[in-house]
Amino acid sequence: METFFSFLERRVDDCSSLLCVGLDPHVSDLSSPTAASARDFCLNLVKQTASYAAAFKPNAAFFEVFGADGWIALKQVIEAIQDESNRRGSMIPVILDAKRGDISSTAEAYAKSAFESLGAHCITLSPYLGKDSIDPFLNYPEKGVFLLCKTSNAGSGDLQDIPLADGDLLYEHVAKLAQSWNTKNNIGLVVGATHLDALKRVREAAPGLWFLAPGVGAQGGELESALRAGLRKDNKGVLLPVSRAISRAANPGVAAAEIRDEILQIRGEIQKHG
Amino acid sequence: METFFSFLERRVDDCSSLLCVGLDPHVSDLSSPTAASARDFCLNLVKQTASYAAAFKPNAAFFEVFGADGWIALKQVIEAIQDESNRRGSMIPVILDAKRGDISSTAEAYAKSAFESLGAHCITLSPYLGKDSIDPFLNYPEKGVFLLCKTSNAGSGDLQDIPLADGDLLYEHVAKLAQSWNTKNNIGLVVGATHLDALKRVREAAPGLWFLAPGVGAQGGELESALRAGLRKDNKGVLLPVSRAISRAANPGVAAAEIRDEILQIRGEIQKHG
Repeated sequence: METFFSFLERRVDDCSSLLCVGLDPHVSDLSSPTAASARDFCLNLVKQTASYAAAFKPNAAFFEVFGADGWIALKQVIEAIQDESNRRGSMIPVILDAKRGDISSTAEAYAKSAFESLGAHCITLSPYLGKDSIDPFLNYPEKGVFLLCKTSNAGSGDLQDIPLADGDLLYEHVAKLAQSWNTKNNIGLVVGATHLDALKRVREAAPGLWFLAPGVGAQGGELESALRAGLRKDNKGVLLPVSRAISRAANPGVAAAEIRDEILQIRGEIQKHG
Repeated sequence: METFFSFLERRVDDCSSLLCVGLDPHVSDLSSPTAASARDFCLNLVKQTASYAAAFKPNAAFFEVFGADGWIALKQVIEAIQDESNRRGSMIPVILDAKRGDISSTAEAYAKSAFESLGAHCITLSPYLGKDSIDPFLNYPEKGVFLLCKTSNAGSGDLQDIPLADGDLLYEHVAKLAQSWNTKNNIGLVVGATHLDALKRVREAAPGLWFLAPGVGAQGGELESALRAGLRKDNKGVLLPVSRAISRAANPGVAAAEIRDEILQIRGEIQKHG
């Protein structure tokens, strides 16, 4: 059985891309405040950017806000990504950005919801409740999780930057835990591209893990520095989610292609000159 | 405008109860694995236990697992609690156990979903992303949040018990942050009744806050010790969620009444003899 991260790496090679297209149908970006409009917004993005997307990342909140209709729309979007993948002969991973985290009997229901009902391949999770809250997700051998480590928001330091008695910052400890928990190649980390020092420290603490590194584009993170700080020795290991810089562009397909190409060029330079 | 915790305290006085009835329609407890069955399971519990419930706590995961139908069922359960409250002339607060936590633009959508679409009065949240991830919820002046502090599960120590450079454990730091953030009387803390030492430490760190203290009953927490460790000086401040010990009882109404009465007796003793 293929693990999620092997699947992701195959797709990364197929499309020469580390771009993860965020599907965030903010109500302010929709033609009307309805679930159908949120769905159409995402279907259009999927169609226009599928050639350049190493993965798609729908954010549960922007569907959940429409209640039952939103959940129908979310499922339709994930199905459309599968259809688009089949047409192209290259499966595109779906990372459900849901940031769930609950005790294990409850986490089982969240895992079933994300992986079985919705058909996502991977989910973002909070580490705050500890390993036993993550296990129900890890028990799906072909699925993956990205644990929140150092997030891209301004307030992330309130907890994540707290210095621990052993000298680490809290997010470094989370990175080390994740590295030690990753016995089945199904754990990655969320590390904001807005925090270069954190990217470097987390790469040191978790040399083998994939990072989901939001913040490039609308949130102001700088692409080249982020890649230099975060890439693994194999020139992979960083997935860069971009939402508004693509969805609000005059031509989202062109915007996605440009970001994909810029990433590719930087990776080439790093590989050649270090 | 009344704050959530004033509302809760009025209800606590009205029904002389600190019992929070958990609405956790685990699929294994249902007559059939459907959203309609989950709804009926909860409607029956609401009807049988409403006299003794200081609050109801539906857990989002057990509805979400049924997709769109689950969200319809969840909304119907919350509406039924409102109807039952109206019939009785005493509003019963609804705490949505969802443990959400995301950056602020996303958190706005989660807050709208919980407070506007679903009509919950309060929600459980993860503190891991910091204050700016909580603010969109705090901006609803009549609503409340319970922040995860020290959870009831066995793995809670993985992060929450980490010793910090300043000598506190991480969960104590979260308690102090929450106490300092609580300028509008709308923040409480989740502190597992299974951890007596933690209850005492958190009560010291956050003398004024309400605790949601799961773990009494099925999870093995001991009622009297938990109340002695957690109650505020005003003999309130601890809400005890109980799910399976009520829902799996031969007569849930009787089970809820017994727990309510036992809590009342212990509070009486503490008030009289300390």
